Amino acid sequence: MNIPESEFKRVLIIGGGFGGLHIAKGLKNKNFQVVMLDKNNYHTFQPLLYQVATSGLEPDSIAYPIRKIFKSQQRFHFRMANVQRIDTAENVVNTDIGDISYDYLVIATGTTTNFFGMKGVEKYAMTMKSVSEALDLRSLILQNFEKALLATEEEQESYMNFPIVGAGPTGVELAGALAELKNHILPADYPDLNIQRMKIQVIEMQDEVLKPMSEKASKKALNYLQELGVDVMLNKSVASFDGNKLTFQSGEVLESKTLIWAAGVKGNIIDGFPESIIDKGRYMVDRTSKVRGTENVYAIGDIAHMTTPLFESGMPQVAPVANQQGDFLAKNLIRISNGQEPKLFEYFDKGSMATIGRNRAVVDMGKIKFQGTLAWFVWMFVHLISLVGFRNRVVTFFNWSYNYFSFDRGARLIIRKFHR
Amino acid sequence: MNIPESEFKRVLIIGGGFGGLHIAKGLKNKNFQVVMLDKNNYHTFQPLLYQVATSGLEPDSIAYPIRKIFKSQQRFHFRMANVQRIDTAENVVNTDIGDISYDYLVIATGTTTNFFGMKGVEKYAMTMKSVSEALDLRSLILQNFEKALLATEEEQESYMNFPIVGAGPTGVELAGALAELKNHILPADYPDLNIQRMKIQVIEMQDEVLKPMSEKASKKALNYLQELGVDVMLNKSVASFDGNKLTFQSGEVLESKTLIWAAGVKGNIIDGFPESIIDKGRYMVDRTSKVRGTENVYAIGDIAHMTTPLFESGMPQVAPVANQQGDFLAKNLIRISNGQEPKLFEYFDKGSMATIGRNRAVVDMGKIKFQGTLAWFVWMFVHLISLVGFRNRVVTFFNWSYNYFSFDRGARLIIRKFHR
Repeated sequence: MNIPESEFKRVLIIGGGFGGLHIAKGLKNKNFQVVMLDKNNYHTFQPLLYQVATSGLEPDSIAYPIRKIFKSQQRFHFRMANVQRIDTAENVVNTDIGDISYDYLVIATGTTTNFFGMKGVEKYAMTMKSVSEALDLRSLILQNFEKALLATEEEQESYMNFPIVGAGPTGVELAGALAELKNHILPADYPDLNIQRMKIQVIEMQDEVLKPMSEKASKKALNYLQELGVDVMLNKSVASFDGNKLTFQSGEVLESKTLIWAAGVKGNIIDGFPESIIDKGRYMVDRTSKVRGTENVYAIGDIAHMTTPLFESGMPQVAPVANQQGDFLAKNLIRISNGQEPKLFEYFDKGSMATIGRNRAVVDMGKIKFQGTLAWFVWMFVHLISLVGFRNRVVTFFNWSYNYFSFDRGARLIIRKFHR
Repeated sequence: MNIPESEFKRVLIIGGGFGGLHIAKGLKNKNFQVVMLDKNNYHTFQPLLYQVATSGLEPDSIAYPIRKIFKSQQRFHFRMANVQRIDTAENVVNTDIGDISYDYLVIATGTTTNFFGMKGVEKYAMTMKSVSEALDLRSLILQNFEKALLATEEEQESYMNFPIVGAGPTGVELAGALAELKNHILPADYPDLNIQRMKIQVIEMQDEVLKPMSEKASKKALNYLQELGVDVMLNKSVASFDGNKLTFQSGEVLESKTLIWAAGVKGNIIDGFPESIIDKGRYMVDRTSKVRGTENVYAIGDIAHMTTPLFESGMPQVAPVANQQGDFLAKNLIRISNGQEPKLFEYFDKGSMATIGRNRAVVDMGKIKFQGTLAWFVWMFVHLISLVGFRNRVVTFFNWSYNYFSFDRGARLIIRKFHR
């Protein structure tokens, strides 16, 4: 592999998500060479993918070139690569661009969609874990309306149903955004169609939406969804989907050409570890993020399963955990290199939030819980300042302001054709 | 076909480019039903595609949903469709979504890339006639550098050569933008590569760049390109390209993984007309844009070959001709419907311009010719106000300002993977 030799120890980071960025930044100007691998040349701000899918934002606003983030960082090297296997005995990672050795390895590969073994769902459902998937979903939504124009009345319905499985933040936020498309945008775009026949369903196997949030937030979110005309189905599970028909466990059937799958994730596990250190698709790590049974291999963020006194059953799979674990591990590696003992991680939960639509959001911050317009502005502010890069913040701010005042969405382009 | 019946005569427009938009707008609130077909659901502002390809602009800024442009226009109907054949005897157009009848047909299909029969070029060269192609080119350029990082010294050169064939506006503007990437962006992005080894070649079979412009403009443009380090090869023709090796007619060879083809266009001719009315890949039309030998079929813009007293050998294939012919034909159709005689078109040439880079542009406006910073600002102003939509203008203006002051380009994302 073509990475310059260095007198410093090499920290090899797999993944340029939240966790990967934070540890790499934390090692800036320290006594390490940092090598980052990712299959994309950009970092994706996943919490806003649903806005790309619903024509509210451009993909370029929520993705950021990794090389640009680190362009002034000494001894940082990025390579676009797919990792195939980790060889802990040899301290080497096998990739499609060759083998890369490491002194310390940090696995920050995050999660991928979990279809729970349902083959039809995997084949036909739309997901939203990457920029490409969000763009495909955007194109499919718009193509459905183009096709509905040409369809018989009966078939029209199945083009205009948008069942979303999973009422976590992704499902709820996407449902709200689709409802706003229905209410404000599509009627003018498709005067020849009765857009009121468009139906958005949120299907959740548990008994409330946004289950991990406070009861107050969950209730309000349900309320908001219903106000926007979303059909929320609780205590309901999907049995199968064949591209035309969604069948529930109860035997009921919904005719639909589309299924949006936001029901679960599983870790992006890499070959090379014994099954015994993997728990529910995540690497078991101690409170220093070290993978069980290894000496110099760490895992952070969604891919890591860590228990702490405050989180006895493990961390939630959210961005702030990855950020904090990345920061913390950087400091620990510096400590180790100075001959000091590493410290033990604890997660500081600043709270959680979700937006359902214009002036409709829910925020839990410890004991402080609020909903509505203020929550919506807080949500926007937090997401805006979390975006990487000045340009992205300005363009996103402008687009949100524009969308707010004009009730419009700019980017209704079918660029990636999705054929089915 | 599922288009509402109307008491008004139907004008069927094939193509949502400059010509199509102009005639459709010209028929607003007139006694016609207007139906527009396009294979995309958006209008593309082609003059700025090269900025998408070089990471300066997002595709969403230079494309605009056609439905949105016409959302308040009565009796306007858009359908996404691929046109297969025109049946002038039956006044019907055959498409992949069914047959569509017309009272008046307007062909505004523009041009596609002309490879002049060179199969290898067609197979391996990159083109830039659509948003998708521009995005592919953007990804390929960036992927080349990722690959160069892993390549042997010898191979590196062929990843870092960017020969562009054709020194018209597209070739020249793209070469300038690539040179600025080389000078300002890539060295920081790829510290492990010697970016000075990147070479941009402009290959032109004629004896000057920007041939249709004034001699002064051509000379200055050549000068600018050379200042920026572009290797301009005049009086040189390509014989073949096999994905690794570019062979010139002279027998010389350039090792290159990339070839950008901006050397020529040919009309998007649709089946259904005799060869006798097609001249150099364009429909022969009279000065009312009527296709020779037909009664109610018109062609406008790049696809039409019209001669006038001022332009005895035909119109240049540029946006202003399409715009003016679209406006003019709308007025003529209204005249015809009022029982009046149609008028005869003449093109009013406001001039032409091209930009080579920051503070480097050339403008010919009749007898007034100027170059440099003022020309550059005029170029930006004209392109900005020509963009469709307030949002696109603001986002483009911001991106240009940002790029200007930061010497940066925001959108260096490899989103569409281009595998070769």
